[in-house]
Amino acid sequence: MSLSLYDVSVPVFVRSLGNLAAILEKSRAFADAQGISHTELLDARLFDDMAPLTAQIQRASDTARFTAARVGQVEMAPIADDETSFDDLQARIAATIAALKAVPATCMDGREDAEVILKTPKKDVSFTGKTYVLNFAVPNFFFHVTTAYDILRYRGVPVGKLDFLGGI
Amino acid sequence: MSLSLYDVSVPVFVRSLGNLAAILEKSRAFADAQGISHTELLDARLFDDMAPLTAQIQRASDTARFTAARVGQVEMAPIADDETSFDDLQARIAATIAALKAVPATCMDGREDAEVILKTPKKDVSFTGKTYVLNFAVPNFFFHVTTAYDILRYRGVPVGKLDFLGGI
Repeated sequence: MSLSLYDVSVPVFVRSLGNLAAILEKSRAFADAQGISHTELLDARLFDDMAPLTAQIQRASDTARFTAARVGQVEMAPIADDETSFDDLQARIAATIAALKAVPATCMDGREDAEVILKTPKKDVSFTGKTYVLNFAVPNFFFHVTTAYDILRYRGVPVGKLDFLGGI
Repeated sequence: MSLSLYDVSVPVFVRSLGNLAAILEKSRAFADAQGISHTELLDARLFDDMAPLTAQIQRASDTARFTAARVGQVEMAPIADDETSFDDLQARIAATIAALKAVPATCMDGREDAEVILKTPKKDVSFTGKTYVLNFAVPNFFFHVTTAYDILRYRGVPVGKLDFLGGI
């Protein structure tokens, strides 16, 4: 029993968002080198009814911030989903990392069994702090970061697993 | 301090592998309904130099089992990468889940700061039990499960986020 809910969420998200920022920089450079418009890449998606790159990054940001808010009961400033450029997305990632780094490491202590409600369009879903982090937040966060990566790979951006994992 | 390294890895992998098995069943049914050959779907990939669906599932299985072996020091029987059908992949997932469920919940206790070596083709990478689980195993596991999902979505399989997350 050596880890807190904070340990397995907030620093993990910070690390991965930093990796995502570096992948986005490589993607911007690739687009410029290949003459691909930035908008084309930001709007790219794997299938018609899947969310595009920009939305994948927005959802990763939300998943990370909302975990701190819902489990850690920390105030998180809203961020509008209005990014239309690589600069905008980098600013959102930077703001997300800054907000997460400001979260006290103790904020989730004792919240393991507390009720955490996720409001979805169809219904309210009830979790405990522990099941919210492990069954929803961590999988959902990596879902969106991986799908952002997969969209960029699908469009030919030359990144690899080590970009996703960061310096190991 | 309420979670163990086991809590944030083994049961999380078991849950996600169960979701992956259900997604694969829907994919098989989709292929049959659409007259798509199983091999075509199992060999599908997002980009020429990315691994296909079958390999994504093999790597998710390995990441989960090797975490128990390396961090928990639990013996894990090797599994050959020889799957060529949906049945084979389901058997691999089932074997992985069974092996993970047999792991004692205490196996990673006290292993937070122990050295864990990851041998890669280029170099040996040194982790602690904690950094292996949080910086490598969990992100890498969800990378491969998400990419399997993304490949299937890209090929039109009608699954959604709730299939990925499982019953929440």
